[in-house]
Amino acid sequence: MKNEIISFLSNSLDKYGYLGAVIGISGGIDSAVTGALLVEALGRDRVFGLLLPERDSSPDTVRDSKLVCCHLGIGYKLIRLTGILRKKGIYRMHPPALFFPRKVQEWYTRKVWEEEGDTYIKELTSSGSTTFLKGLAYYRIKHRTRMTMLYFEAEKRHYAVVGSTNKTEVKMGFYVKWGDDSVDFEPLSHLYKTDVYRLAGELGVPDRIIEKPASPDIAPGITDEYAMGVSYKDIDRILKKIEGGKDLSSEKPENVRRVTTILNCAAYREIRSLGISDQLP
Amino acid sequence: MKNEIISFLSNSLDKYGYLGAVIGISGGIDSAVTGALLVEALGRDRVFGLLLPERDSSPDTVRDSKLVCCHLGIGYKLIRLTGILRKKGIYRMHPPALFFPRKVQEWYTRKVWEEEGDTYIKELTSSGSTTFLKGLAYYRIKHRTRMTMLYFEAEKRHYAVVGSTNKTEVKMGFYVKWGDDSVDFEPLSHLYKTDVYRLAGELGVPDRIIEKPASPDIAPGITDEYAMGVSYKDIDRILKKIEGGKDLSSEKPENVRRVTTILNCAAYREIRSLGISDQLP
Repeated sequence: MKNEIISFLSNSLDKYGYLGAVIGISGGIDSAVTGALLVEALGRDRVFGLLLPERDSSPDTVRDSKLVCCHLGIGYKLIRLTGILRKKGIYRMHPPALFFPRKVQEWYTRKVWEEEGDTYIKELTSSGSTTFLKGLAYYRIKHRTRMTMLYFEAEKRHYAVVGSTNKTEVKMGFYVKWGDDSVDFEPLSHLYKTDVYRLAGELGVPDRIIEKPASPDIAPGITDEYAMGVSYKDIDRILKKIEGGKDLSSEKPENVRRVTTILNCAAYREIRSLGISDQLP
Repeated sequence: MKNEIISFLSNSLDKYGYLGAVIGISGGIDSAVTGALLVEALGRDRVFGLLLPERDSSPDTVRDSKLVCCHLGIGYKLIRLTGILRKKGIYRMHPPALFFPRKVQEWYTRKVWEEEGDTYIKELTSSGSTTFLKGLAYYRIKHRTRMTMLYFEAEKRHYAVVGSTNKTEVKMGFYVKWGDDSVDFEPLSHLYKTDVYRLAGELGVPDRIIEKPASPDIAPGITDEYAMGVSYKDIDRILKKIEGGKDLSSEKPENVRRVTTILNCAAYREIRSLGISDQLP
């Protein structure tokens, strides 16, 4: 598994003449794994990390991201996006919650999330109340702004932008269109999240990074599993059974229903630059 | 031609439940034509224009864009990107040329362009000197920043982002990956530039917009035809002959060579989120 990805990375960067790779380091497991694979493929001198936190990032984000970069031994740059996003006018929509303890922020965000009803489905289909739609615009522009910065640093160096989206995220629509999915190479897109965990162990990713709950780091208290409503273990097992055409009767019916609903709605993410000669999905 | 696009637009927005469309108005012919088609498809109240100039935009950009919006009778918002791009740190790379007359700026930019050698080919393949690569990063981040603003305004309203890229631009790679090409619907992507001109006449686009030289408005004096080195009339005639498998012997050999070289290099634009299970192009 590991060696196949390493040759994919070194062959494809070579084929297109890229001199190295830029990667966004979030402090999460996926970017840590991608970083480790890139270091093995290219050597640490040709891998450059970008840390792109903003006002609402978790207080752990920068510390964990630095830990990953130090562990990998790669050069990196910390660019705080708060000033850029303020200029884009987004923070006016949500005043800062600085004076509340993180736990209160988490409680409040989850309350708002739950009041909206089936929030993740509404997210996938971009539907819901005006307040909810503003919330979508508010967090998606952050991911897209990160993409613009990754390319800015990559293009100056003739480096490729390498992404960290895994197969579970692709299938479940757990990414931002023209944001974290918009890269040159996507070395984890054939691996389920649970496979990424296995690979992390093999690559020696620090325990702290492996053990923290996976989160898109967009709002306090909203982890991946909280947003999707099913655990990664359950999601991946069900996705693999669906992919292999296997019997689902041993699975909890509510989990199967949840995963298949999300799969159907995730197709909305795939409306991309559709022209008159394309088949509408 | 016109009616087919109008039904494509109203059907596809309807199918995905979008309430309207956001469009970036540049003051050029493509966005004016797309705007006119959207108004016919959805009615002017469901079409919203964004004007997104920045420090280096032509002095005519805002005036021409307002002319288009007034002519279409659509609502619009002018967001100057200069502050955002300054926060992204880009203007430090190129100091302002404010005190030089526009003509001198044009002369200077063309001189730099010509000194680099085959600039458009280098652009397509992202190769060249360090200074040149910085120049690429510098102008591409502008297009990507525009994309983030178009989606921000669209998502707040549950509107689609509708693009204006035509078939000549698609084939010749005359767009920025994850920038002006990253939209929900692309109603002109099956039309060559010369067809867009014809459509503009039919739709009553103001003469001033039709007659100005097509330009990406990224640097003074660099028009589309100057950058590609062949006129749109010649490019489209050659592209149509190639598409139809027709004889090219009546074409100037240097034009055919130029177009085919660009076609080959434009494939580099298509490195997009490639995974291990994708076929490398």
